Amino acid sequence: MLGRGAAAPQVTRGKFITLEGGEGAGKSTQLARLALHLRAGGHDVLTTREPGGTAFAEALRGVLVGDAAQGVDPLAEALAHFAARADHVSRTIRPALEAGQHVLCDRFFDSTFAYQVVAGGIDRRHFDTLRHAAIGDFRPDLTLVLDLPVALGMARARDANRYEALGAAFHERVRAAFRSLAETEPDRCVLIDAAADTDTVARAIASVVRERLGIGP
Amino acid sequence: MLGRGAAAPQVTRGKFITLEGGEGAGKSTQLARLALHLRAGGHDVLTTREPGGTAFAEALRGVLVGDAAQGVDPLAEALAHFAARADHVSRTIRPALEAGQHVLCDRFFDSTFAYQVVAGGIDRRHFDTLRHAAIGDFRPDLTLVLDLPVALGMARARDANRYEALGAAFHERVRAAFRSLAETEPDRCVLIDAAADTDTVARAIASVVRERLGIGP
Repeated sequence: MLGRGAAAPQVTRGKFITLEGGEGAGKSTQLARLALHLRAGGHDVLTTREPGGTAFAEALRGVLVGDAAQGVDPLAEALAHFAARADHVSRTIRPALEAGQHVLCDRFFDSTFAYQVVAGGIDRRHFDTLRHAAIGDFRPDLTLVLDLPVALGMARARDANRYEALGAAFHERVRAAFRSLAETEPDRCVLIDAAADTDTVARAIASVVRERLGIGP
Repeated sequence: MLGRGAAAPQVTRGKFITLEGGEGAGKSTQLARLALHLRAGGHDVLTTREPGGTAFAEALRGVLVGDAAQGVDPLAEALAHFAARADHVSRTIRPALEAGQHVLCDRFFDSTFAYQVVAGGIDRRHFDTLRHAAIGDFRPDLTLVLDLPVALGMARARDANRYEALGAAFHERVRAAFRSLAETEPDRCVLIDAAADTDTVARAIASVVRERLGIGP
């Protein structure tokens, strides 16, 4: 029986780690590797993705990647991403972090910045406004930016036709946007050389996660 | 052959008219009646609805009214409505108005205000921020607020079970939100007594449209 004034057991808030990068950079592979690595160290880990992570957000993902999104207004597209993100943060990510889980997420708001703002051309101020309205000052504790040359990403991408259709110039803008993050937000974002083999990249990521957040086996 | 300096034919911008009100107020019936009335006067009229009006927005509507929206974060819901609205305004409503069509729309941002802000509890400032980010200062030329007692709307509503499930207190808040529009924005919003029979309401609407916008047969 708890005595008067006894507090609930203290749970240390988990860390929120996002993986970013162009298609073919190996985000989903490395996210799975990092989850295994942290679980081997006894950590409780939740893996998730954007757009997605709740029933509502996954349904929006279906719209965003489907035929109905052909020719969509770029600002409307960004708003739909933030709609999915607001639900994801509110109902999946925050509760998991507060329960002490580390959350690993494949893409987050940096992808909206790279694809809709830098490469897509919507106003940066709209991005800042929507981000603040949707999730306030919530942000990842660590963002791993998987970087590799566009030609290599193109060769590796699973859906090469769709990737090529967007054009190399588009992907160069996306790559430059992601690389700029590591320069403008060095406390949060770390550039990872994703051109190396899977094991080498996984070791580099594990090392950064230990160094920055103090977690690992 | 056009001479030097010949301008394209001048097209008078159409008027944007929205119908608002709780379920069972007769919005879709009156929208169809008003379209017939204006077409009888030789006007080119586009009828549309929210959420909807583009392939992307209709797909979002499917998500918003489907099972995936059960328990969705209210702010995420509002963001999804503005995502649909940004596409609708950009790709359907503005082009039609600029081509000289009058646009009649079943629900618009006042519904997001009534349902998500007043009845749903999201922050009014978020609504203003999202509205400005999504569509700037774009707004209806005339908003017809179809008002009737909650019990009467409940009796008339096609999907009475869903309507009743939300509770009378919810619908009273929605009604009060719509009624307040006619007081706070009298230049744009006109309260219509929707408790009368269909023909009487249609005549009242036709009269307001002629008086406010100078259009009709």
